[in-house]
Amino acid sequence: MARRTGRRPGNPDTREAILAAARAAFAERGYDGTSIRAVATGAGVDPALVHHYFGTKDKLFLAAMQAPLDPQELLDAATEGDPEQLGVRFVRLFLRIWDGPGGAAGVALLRSAVGNEWTAHLFREFVGSQILRRAVPRLGLDDAQGPLRVSLAASHMVGIAMARYVIKVEPLASAPAEVIAAAVGPSVQRYLTDPLPEVFGVPETS
Amino acid sequence: MARRTGRRPGNPDTREAILAAARAAFAERGYDGTSIRAVATGAGVDPALVHHYFGTKDKLFLAAMQAPLDPQELLDAATEGDPEQLGVRFVRLFLRIWDGPGGAAGVALLRSAVGNEWTAHLFREFVGSQILRRAVPRLGLDDAQGPLRVSLAASHMVGIAMARYVIKVEPLASAPAEVIAAAVGPSVQRYLTDPLPEVFGVPETS
Repeated sequence: MARRTGRRPGNPDTREAILAAARAAFAERGYDGTSIRAVATGAGVDPALVHHYFGTKDKLFLAAMQAPLDPQELLDAATEGDPEQLGVRFVRLFLRIWDGPGGAAGVALLRSAVGNEWTAHLFREFVGSQILRRAVPRLGLDDAQGPLRVSLAASHMVGIAMARYVIKVEPLASAPAEVIAAAVGPSVQRYLTDPLPEVFGVPETS
Repeated sequence: MARRTGRRPGNPDTREAILAAARAAFAERGYDGTSIRAVATGAGVDPALVHHYFGTKDKLFLAAMQAPLDPQELLDAATEGDPEQLGVRFVRLFLRIWDGPGGAAGVALLRSAVGNEWTAHLFREFVGSQILRRAVPRLGLDDAQGPLRVSLAASHMVGIAMARYVIKVEPLASAPAEVIAAAVGPSVQRYLTDPLPEVFGVPETS
């Protein structure tokens, strides 16, 4: 076998066995219910080897999902700068990833996410543990409103990804990213930062 | 074989053969490039039989897609009433269909739409011929702006359907339909009816 170089050293069979065990564990027991130790047991390897190959449980999950991006990095990048431009900035960064080399992996991820109940469950854990849970505090959102706000914004982005990259509906598929960011950014901004009394009611004055 | 009664008379094998020929024709040649005659030839039956079973080419397409709703009917219902409430009304009607008995068919349709290139192409034809083309004149939209406006609104609805019914992300999956309509309706309204100078530029004064 040829010697492997670069960022993913070691036996590729071992690595694949760990990823398969991780997918099964995350889908069956959820993100919180899955430990590195349980994945190691499932793959028949030492837990230290899982840490060696993948680092943290988060990184293992992203690798198991073949995620084209780390949502944490996207969130960090989007929240730097003028808070009033958060929505436009977020959509722009999101499209830059999909329009780039990560796009094919993104399409594969979406295809697998909707393929069946098992993969849908895995994707649900991904959105819950990697996106919603991080985004709510990172964006400084209220715990009661944050999850719905972030899931509205995320569902819009999933819809854009579906229409532009999977179904390829025109004119959305070939519109410049800047046009989509200008159109969709304010909707994302509204979900994340506007008071939305029609959704959450008018806050009581104390 | 038991005698069939109700709205779908005739030989079920013939009916299925017509639907299979229709799916192949619509995916390969598109909606406009497909004639009832060509579908009949593909299925080895007389064109009159296709008309007898399915009526128009539109109805045949909806049946071939196993569409849970006729987009034309949804559009007609949504455009009746206060134009300023169009977005909220549209989202409410859309969710009522998905929350009802048509929801399972909708999930199956979305799953098949993203399964592979062939079914994605079929879904793209569905969106183009059954949604965009009808919605632009029905909503009185400008021909230059209408297709992007409608595809932005449609992509948002696809994302809501994905998140709520396929991936089942919480709290979106169990939020009351009225809450989602109140949240998403204004975004849909903005895409369809607001001037959006940031997207389309400021119109020249003549």
